[in-house]
Amino acid sequence: MKNRYTIAALAALMLATSTAQAQFQRPDDAVKYRQGALFVMGQHFGRVGAMASGRVPFDAQVAQQNMDVVMALSTLPWAGFGPETQSVNSRAKPNVWTDRAAFDEAGRNTLVALAALNEATRTGNLEAVRRTFGAAAATCKVCHDNFRN
Amino acid sequence: MKNRYTIAALAALMLATSTAQAQFQRPDDAVKYRQGALFVMGQHFGRVGAMASGRVPFDAQVAQQNMDVVMALSTLPWAGFGPETQSVNSRAKPNVWTDRAAFDEAGRNTLVALAALNEATRTGNLEAVRRTFGAAAATCKVCHDNFRN
Repeated sequence: MKNRYTIAALAALMLATSTAQAQFQRPDDAVKYRQGALFVMGQHFGRVGAMASGRVPFDAQVAQQNMDVVMALSTLPWAGFGPETQSVNSRAKPNVWTDRAAFDEAGRNTLVALAALNEATRTGNLEAVRRTFGAAAATCKVCHDNFRN
Repeated sequence: MKNRYTIAALAALMLATSTAQAQFQRPDDAVKYRQGALFVMGQHFGRVGAMASGRVPFDAQVAQQNMDVVMALSTLPWAGFGPETQSVNSRAKPNVWTDRAAFDEAGRNTLVALAALNEATRTGNLEAVRRTFGAAAATCKVCHDNFRN
């Protein structure tokens, strides 16, 4: 797994992933897919957060294992927000589709922030993990606040 | 991402993963986690299957991308089958917990078969992909038939 990401590479990856994986049999599957990927990501991200906040002792190796999963999943959910899923009941707000540029930018910001957190976990420096975790969590919150009911 | 797995390494990984990640706040979360991980895995596994069966043209690069996701997820769901989840409504049969050794063996068989499929996609040999996909799908089916309603 690569440890270095650039914004351009991430954006390209996100687009390539969306294209290569827009292969859902039914809109329901796309929704289950994005929800599943985001939930699993969120669980592992949260475990890093528990260490960042001091709720559990910091273990650099466990933080890295969790970030490996987060990074492997981070490019996936976006393919599940295709226009055909607009009619499926979910917490996604209509502006995911009507303000797509802002939604895509929010997604890219999260990928960039997660890449920085991933780098930080590899340094084993808890202060850097704390700082980059907070920044990454803030990008998640922007999307949740603006695009999720 | 490593391309070579041994049965012993996989079994150790599965156990380590189960231990390191048995950190669910609530039994419901564990169930959503295992369902999400298995669903996302299944989608990507199915895309390799579509190529194996000839429903879509074989593209070695896309097959490998899909197997990267499958392999990254393949060790995760098992942590979501903790004893505390037995009371949560799901399709899991009680024998997941009452016949745990058989369940764990079925999981290990799937990991081993997926590793073989992963190897095969890296050769770009469609015949090898077909054969190992069929074997891997058979291990999924054993578990679904025996441990899922």
